[in-house]
Amino acid sequence: MIYLDNAGTTRVLGEIAETYKYFLTEEYYNPSAPYHQALELSKAITNAKENILRLIKGNGNIIFTSSGTESDNLALFGTKKPNGCRIIVSNSEHSAIYNTALELKQRGYDVIFTEADKFGRVDIEQFQKNMNKDTYLVSIMHVNNETGAINDIKKLCEIAKKINPKVIFHSDGVQALGKIKVSVSDIGLDLYSFSGHKIHAPKGVGGLFVKSNINLKPMLFGGGQENNLRSSTENVAGIMCLTQALQLAINNIEDNYQKVNSLCDIIKAKIDNNKIMTITNNDCSPYILCLALKHIRGEVMLHSLEKYGILIGTGSACSSKKSHKKLPSILKLPSEYSEGIIRISFCRYNTKDDIEYFINKLNLEYSELIKYVRG
Amino acid sequence: MIYLDNAGTTRVLGEIAETYKYFLTEEYYNPSAPYHQALELSKAITNAKENILRLIKGNGNIIFTSSGTESDNLALFGTKKPNGCRIIVSNSEHSAIYNTALELKQRGYDVIFTEADKFGRVDIEQFQKNMNKDTYLVSIMHVNNETGAINDIKKLCEIAKKINPKVIFHSDGVQALGKIKVSVSDIGLDLYSFSGHKIHAPKGVGGLFVKSNINLKPMLFGGGQENNLRSSTENVAGIMCLTQALQLAINNIEDNYQKVNSLCDIIKAKIDNNKIMTITNNDCSPYILCLALKHIRGEVMLHSLEKYGILIGTGSACSSKKSHKKLPSILKLPSEYSEGIIRISFCRYNTKDDIEYFINKLNLEYSELIKYVRG
Repeated sequence: MIYLDNAGTTRVLGEIAETYKYFLTEEYYNPSAPYHQALELSKAITNAKENILRLIKGNGNIIFTSSGTESDNLALFGTKKPNGCRIIVSNSEHSAIYNTALELKQRGYDVIFTEADKFGRVDIEQFQKNMNKDTYLVSIMHVNNETGAINDIKKLCEIAKKINPKVIFHSDGVQALGKIKVSVSDIGLDLYSFSGHKIHAPKGVGGLFVKSNINLKPMLFGGGQENNLRSSTENVAGIMCLTQALQLAINNIEDNYQKVNSLCDIIKAKIDNNKIMTITNNDCSPYILCLALKHIRGEVMLHSLEKYGILIGTGSACSSKKSHKKLPSILKLPSEYSEGIIRISFCRYNTKDDIEYFINKLNLEYSELIKYVRG
Repeated sequence: MIYLDNAGTTRVLGEIAETYKYFLTEEYYNPSAPYHQALELSKAITNAKENILRLIKGNGNIIFTSSGTESDNLALFGTKKPNGCRIIVSNSEHSAIYNTALELKQRGYDVIFTEADKFGRVDIEQFQKNMNKDTYLVSIMHVNNETGAINDIKKLCEIAKKINPKVIFHSDGVQALGKIKVSVSDIGLDLYSFSGHKIHAPKGVGGLFVKSNINLKPMLFGGGQENNLRSSTENVAGIMCLTQALQLAINNIEDNYQKVNSLCDIIKAKIDNNKIMTITNNDCSPYILCLALKHIRGEVMLHSLEKYGILIGTGSACSSKKSHKKLPSILKLPSEYSEGIIRISFCRYNTKDDIEYFINKLNLEYSELIKYVRG
């Protein structure tokens, strides 16, 4: 099988699955218990946080959550902000931000969905126009989960803080961390979300970086874990695996990037640009390649490739079962391409052979399917 | 090692850890993706829900969450109720309910903490007095996590619904499900919380039973998973393991109960009642045995037993690091016992030999430690 839907989720590495199993069956204690074995786990969690802070070059705290979505929700709901103040998110955010922002709008906040360009990248001038002194929260994703566009969050953060020094700047880093170099300090971020299952760690664990001077309100109340910010018995195995996966990803981040970039280039080179549009520019992450097929529906191609054992996506997996019509209009796609979006997303374990096979089958199936399209 | 802190957390069974690993490395797809492998996972989750509904004899839905705490929070925050209405919880609830109820009080609800008797069991008369027509939410735990007291939630539910037929009745079943027989239909429950890691499944997964006519508001917004009630990529491995663990626990629930009950009896029979008070009656779950040591601090005994490789608790693990002074006053313990609470909590894998060893060491250490107490 050739799995090219790594932005949807990833296969957990064997060594990480072993770590998980070890913590389930051997180091299974409740980290809040007062005996030695439990205290060791509590220390291991503290060490995990320190490791992640070092890896992302952050000065602050890590809150472990159950998912990228929970991290995003905690960032948006948990930040202290004046009632009714302005909140800016981009119109191309993942649903974990987009729908949470809609809920905040329902609750009386002045939520602005700032526009993206034809690559899914937030338009800086538009953002600057939307940003005002009443804006206390901004959330702009680092790497777009559908197009791979990398937002210039450093620049956006600078602009935001210049206009309101009290603004809290959050970024959803789920598609960025472990794939492109991240220094939250250099960017100037207050909050940064990430997820385990996008980087070969299990589902059910995520994290939120919180800069040292930022105070959050919890969403979950109870035993007071995570410094009272996220009650629940800590998911020790998940936390250890997320940390291990992040370390592994960052160990060879540049080599991995180059490798994936060359895979991406193979596809781009072999596409007939009159039939398939490549929605990418040089500022995009090579881990996600968004294509738009002329006159062919994305889901039809997806199912056509399934018979060869090739799995791809048609945009965000997280909402792919529902009608997801946002993207074509954001990207201002011509009508003959607007139903044809497919998303190819890579991991560092994909091979050149896999990609050659994929692109041959994509081109073959395209020429087959187009025969049935009424001219 | 003799692990007697199973109410804090449990060791994950080998076969369940294997299931986890399988889903991490083989069936790792995102259940929301549109291809065959993902659709199969989506079906497996639906089947898991149906299995759990059958096991708990429930008519409605199961929402998978990240923990018992999240299930409790979703039950309390997610229920639709008039602003400022009365909410009743018991004064002996787990912190996941207690502290969430305090937060609801902060938000303007008329929260009443109804009293428990000296076994930690909710006083039915008191409850009846507190219950009124403005009470739209009640949450009373099924089995008390510190004393093992089993609340008569069927009776309480009956009383509540007689006074306000619109009341929503929730119970935290984390210490009950898989240990004592549960039929949510027979009890008349609207919402019922449970957790994986208390029944030999992993940490990081829990569930909430929701009766068919009950509508909840979500706490997490995003991709619309769990029928829009709990967005986040589904923790497939966790869900499968929780379901498997619950099935395994319920398969032999009566035999397990008898076994654990006989272990509990061994301890009760060998305790000198002039030195150690047994906080239990015949209505308590045998899985939790709460003892109070005269003149000896619980945590001192806990650490004394550690050197023999015996691990016990001193009340709720979830808050054991913080000062947890609620229990002695709820149980109205005489002052010479009030610092001496220890919690012995069993699982079906504890053996008679373990328990004999434990009780001998408990008695031995008691006679050693008491020598240092100023008379």
